[in-house]
Amino acid sequence: MEKVKLRILYSDLRPELEIIEKELEQAVQSSSHLLNDASLHLLQAGGKRIRPVFVLLAAKFGDYDAATVRNVAVPLELIHMASLVHDDVIDDSEVRRGEPTVKAQWNNRVAMYTGDFMFARALEHAAAVRNPVLHEVLAKAIIEVCRGEIIQIEDKSQLDQNLRSYLRRIKRKTALLISSSCELGGLAAGADPATVAHLRRFGYFIGMSFQIIDDVLDFTASDAELGKPAGSDFLQGNITLPILFARDDEKLQALLQRTLGEELTDRQRLDVVEEVRESAGIRRSKELSDRYLQKALRELAALPDIPSKKALRDLAFFIGKRKF
Amino acid sequence: MEKVKLRILYSDLRPELEIIEKELEQAVQSSSHLLNDASLHLLQAGGKRIRPVFVLLAAKFGDYDAATVRNVAVPLELIHMASLVHDDVIDDSEVRRGEPTVKAQWNNRVAMYTGDFMFARALEHAAAVRNPVLHEVLAKAIIEVCRGEIIQIEDKSQLDQNLRSYLRRIKRKTALLISSSCELGGLAAGADPATVAHLRRFGYFIGMSFQIIDDVLDFTASDAELGKPAGSDFLQGNITLPILFARDDEKLQALLQRTLGEELTDRQRLDVVEEVRESAGIRRSKELSDRYLQKALRELAALPDIPSKKALRDLAFFIGKRKF
Repeated sequence: MEKVKLRILYSDLRPELEIIEKELEQAVQSSSHLLNDASLHLLQAGGKRIRPVFVLLAAKFGDYDAATVRNVAVPLELIHMASLVHDDVIDDSEVRRGEPTVKAQWNNRVAMYTGDFMFARALEHAAAVRNPVLHEVLAKAIIEVCRGEIIQIEDKSQLDQNLRSYLRRIKRKTALLISSSCELGGLAAGADPATVAHLRRFGYFIGMSFQIIDDVLDFTASDAELGKPAGSDFLQGNITLPILFARDDEKLQALLQRTLGEELTDRQRLDVVEEVRESAGIRRSKELSDRYLQKALRELAALPDIPSKKALRDLAFFIGKRKF
Repeated sequence: MEKVKLRILYSDLRPELEIIEKELEQAVQSSSHLLNDASLHLLQAGGKRIRPVFVLLAAKFGDYDAATVRNVAVPLELIHMASLVHDDVIDDSEVRRGEPTVKAQWNNRVAMYTGDFMFARALEHAAAVRNPVLHEVLAKAIIEVCRGEIIQIEDKSQLDQNLRSYLRRIKRKTALLISSSCELGGLAAGADPATVAHLRRFGYFIGMSFQIIDDVLDFTASDAELGKPAGSDFLQGNITLPILFARDDEKLQALLQRTLGEELTDRQRLDVVEEVRESAGIRRSKELSDRYLQKALRELAALPDIPSKKALRDLAFFIGKRKF
């Protein structure tokens, strides 16, 4: 169902997204069969192509040149995919979106170099962007994704985190790349500086909202809806917002301390998921996500009234309210 | 013995190299114990710090600012180390310079993210270089290292390679980073364009010579001298120059075809190493390395006569003639 809704939201963009999809496929062509297979597996496992969509919608606020816009959308999506395949190694994830991960289908070694490969291709594409401003924003986005991965490793399994370190983590993990997507779309289309600034902040706020909802869904959605076991993040030792808030309940804190990052049976895992789901953690997380959503909408309000504005608004609501 | 010679060659640079060493140690500081341990393990396993040395020596051809020069030397060495730790995963290497590799001491997963971490730190350092020319050369060097890793994967275990693909591979794997080190040293010191061009070409030729000798030593040096089993490259399916030349002998070609990238007993491995060592492949490889060395020396000859010129010359001879 989610896919249906997204398809409607995206329908105007379909011709452009199809070209981007082809360029992504070309970008991962290689003379190694194994690299080809693993990259295409990753590409075809889909994903929402949220970043290219934001680039395209943002570009409509300026004087839109399709090729320039693709030149930033393609490396952004490649970087995102490179980070996913390495994240799956770090988190020891077997399934993503209902498909076996590269590390599960092959092994950690193949996942490592498939990620390196996509990253190298992203760098090549980024280097080909001649406009110095676009180039710099893209380079910064790449660095932030790398730092995000490292911060995730550093913070792992440390239950004594605070809200601040969680927000720092999701900012680098998700929000900055979405923010850069919106900013780059605007910049690539030569939108005026005020518009670009609103787009950038819109992307940042919607990225924060998006990731918090993602972290909530890890507890509230079913295994089937998620395409992976519910509670995976927690099992992998990632402290997300519902956990941080749930921790305020002393009984729950003891349970979390005992089970965080441990090997649990399916039964034990579902027990923890159930406890967190019934705690105040979910409600409070949704409230915070909503606050970010409202901030994102305020940035949108300041933008010129063009059809793309409504599309961004719909997308924001969809992201902020999605069930899985 | 090699270490003694190098120490003499480096002696004038010692104070500057010590500061670079401290900056490298600082650069890999992290709040994760595991990342710290693995990075320091990698750093302390040593290596010749050839890239920083070339940066420093090249910088002496201009008006030398120590901090600027360090700002390019540190990311160059970090990128090199990041590529080594990922190479060890790709090649399944257990030992490097007599020490267990990160993947052997920990596992592929830790090696992957230690490499990612060092790479992220290299990118951060590179981004902090404000001079646009330095920045661009450094960014290109980073991309070439990434591409080099991928080409190595793509070419693996394909015996029907030609000289051209071998040269392309070592160019990206080794020569371009050494070339960039020399170029960046000159640029960072504001050397004139002709000098920078000679330094860049000198680095390129000496890098080619260096890597060919490295590939020869894989067959001619002993396990103890190498700090890893002789013939490792071959066992890992890497087709190097001695193999390419040795292939012209039909009997040897059959043996290579049977054994390339296979699991061999120690006895079988040493037999193959012995066969290659006694083939024309070694002599012809050394001749080609020598040709690059001569080209490097011709570039040097065109440079102004300052003490650093003699040091580069000594280093070139040392590299071209080293026994292990």
